[in-house]
Amino acid sequence: MQNGNHANAPLNPGLVFEMLSAHQRTAALKAAIDLDVFRAVGDGPGDVASIARDCAASERGIRILCDFLCISGVLTKEGGLYKHTPTSATFLDPRSPACIASIAQFMSRPEMREPYEHLAEVVRRGHTSLPGDGTVEPENPVWVTFAEKMAPMMAPMAGPLGAVVLEGFKGPMRVLDIAAGHGLFGIEVAKQNPEANVTGLDWAPVLRVAMDNARRAGVQDRYGMLPGSAFEVDFNGPYDAVLLTNFLHHFDVTTCVKLLKKVHDSLRPGGRAATLEFVPNEDRISPPMPAAFSMTMLTSTAAGDAYTLSELTAMYREAGFKGMTVHPIPMSPHTIVMGAA
Amino acid sequence: MQNGNHANAPLNPGLVFEMLSAHQRTAALKAAIDLDVFRAVGDGPGDVASIARDCAASERGIRILCDFLCISGVLTKEGGLYKHTPTSATFLDPRSPACIASIAQFMSRPEMREPYEHLAEVVRRGHTSLPGDGTVEPENPVWVTFAEKMAPMMAPMAGPLGAVVLEGFKGPMRVLDIAAGHGLFGIEVAKQNPEANVTGLDWAPVLRVAMDNARRAGVQDRYGMLPGSAFEVDFNGPYDAVLLTNFLHHFDVTTCVKLLKKVHDSLRPGGRAATLEFVPNEDRISPPMPAAFSMTMLTSTAAGDAYTLSELTAMYREAGFKGMTVHPIPMSPHTIVMGAA
Repeated sequence: MQNGNHANAPLNPGLVFEMLSAHQRTAALKAAIDLDVFRAVGDGPGDVASIARDCAASERGIRILCDFLCISGVLTKEGGLYKHTPTSATFLDPRSPACIASIAQFMSRPEMREPYEHLAEVVRRGHTSLPGDGTVEPENPVWVTFAEKMAPMMAPMAGPLGAVVLEGFKGPMRVLDIAAGHGLFGIEVAKQNPEANVTGLDWAPVLRVAMDNARRAGVQDRYGMLPGSAFEVDFNGPYDAVLLTNFLHHFDVTTCVKLLKKVHDSLRPGGRAATLEFVPNEDRISPPMPAAFSMTMLTSTAAGDAYTLSELTAMYREAGFKGMTVHPIPMSPHTIVMGAA
Repeated sequence: MQNGNHANAPLNPGLVFEMLSAHQRTAALKAAIDLDVFRAVGDGPGDVASIARDCAASERGIRILCDFLCISGVLTKEGGLYKHTPTSATFLDPRSPACIASIAQFMSRPEMREPYEHLAEVVRRGHTSLPGDGTVEPENPVWVTFAEKMAPMMAPMAGPLGAVVLEGFKGPMRVLDIAAGHGLFGIEVAKQNPEANVTGLDWAPVLRVAMDNARRAGVQDRYGMLPGSAFEVDFNGPYDAVLLTNFLHHFDVTTCVKLLKKVHDSLRPGGRAATLEFVPNEDRISPPMPAAFSMTMLTSTAAGDAYTLSELTAMYREAGFKGMTVHPIPMSPHTIVMGAA
């Protein structure tokens, strides 16, 4: 991904060729993960023959794939031996506790890939080519995969989110985690405050993943489940805090405001709502990752978007919130926006 | 595309996310070309509503697509209006004489894309998942598309190649252009030397494209056609020069040497063979574009490769050539390697 405006970039047809070839980078990383190449490289010694044997693959295929991964920055090559880069050692070797390789399973799901096969038509129509409202159709199974596979990428953000939500709060509290998914955000609040009771809201099969994670974290006794649609179920407030992580971007502004009003009504006075979002700058073309996320919303939803800070705070205000604060999460493309009821 | 080794890159899960999202860049550029967005931006004024109207597309779709193109460096945005970057003005606006947008039609052909849908399996087997020898199967129609659509990208290299091949040669000469495709390389030799007679060799439907281009260049009276396989037809020498552009990479070393011997035998003593190739450095992971080209050969052929300079010169030597010279083409990922019979 390049950075923002490029008016001064050197004249280069290579950029056009590179963009039209960029799909190869996705396929190469997915193939390497599926073949367990990053484990084999970690095992060493890193020559083509050993990796090919470990991965039950051809030497020609492994040599070309590993060279391609070097070019892409997720392996390196020294004296003919492939080695991890710090990035691949940390995020792609399955033995690393920070490994996020599983996100490839979510990101390559048919729902996430199919609209790109006819993106011109999606742009013409202005909404996803998936049936109905796309990934936000009721009970869409894509969210079970999200809960299972995207958790490692979201986990590092749970700590900062918990700290922001709990700042200045002590003692017994009730927390609602809307679109809980893997549940890691609510679970983190329960870990940081041993007197917090957390309710996860999501489709029932998704909540089973969250409850597994709650058990693993030892907070299952303080973790409740509220299965269903955030727009339809009774929230059963009042709450001290409501989490809305990676959720608002799926909907248009009117729908977001409606939901935020419902959240506002479920909070005790002074209670907090915290959203975790990709928040692009007002120019909508920087920083690259949050800004590019709009494309995912175009292809997978009817009317979602990556909202700017001014849009998010306007929604909060319209829903009755005040005292909005903004907390970018370091080393991540995500930002927490919080408002008080 | 990143550059070579990355051992010192900062620790960043964003690179993994970016690679798994890279397919979006390909889809976005293809969609923009198909929707004629770059023409609409060139027309101005560049607001979302005008571009959407010009492209018969939705405003939501156009806004998100154009923002994505800005992030990718092929548009820019000033005061809410989308404008060309120098790159998009030159290489993507259909009114630019240097426009190469048509290459998207070749690069998105099913033959070029399908193997990436199961790349792990291709790596396991070590050869293309296409039938037989992949794109080099006899009479494969993909080469008609190549000849028609890739010509604008190859055209800037014809001048330098012609100059290298003709350097020190004057007067009447016979030139064979093997795998002529669009024919631009042989045609350029005919333009630079009004006494040169050029024979294009390729599948018959491909040669019709070359002949159209020869007519357009006004050299049709000195352009002959030799339809068939380079491995089977009689070259009908002797020639003063033989061009082998973008061809050797489709085959294994043994096959390349066999062909180069046949080329050698068809040259008069002192005659020249000139290959135009993606030539990676000996490390095979730099520069990015030539090195990455091996992946295209893995996915589309049985045994092709992007050969290094030492491999290419060894093939030339084994085929009987001497006095090999190397000519990188400035501002391009291609290199000319020439040998004398």
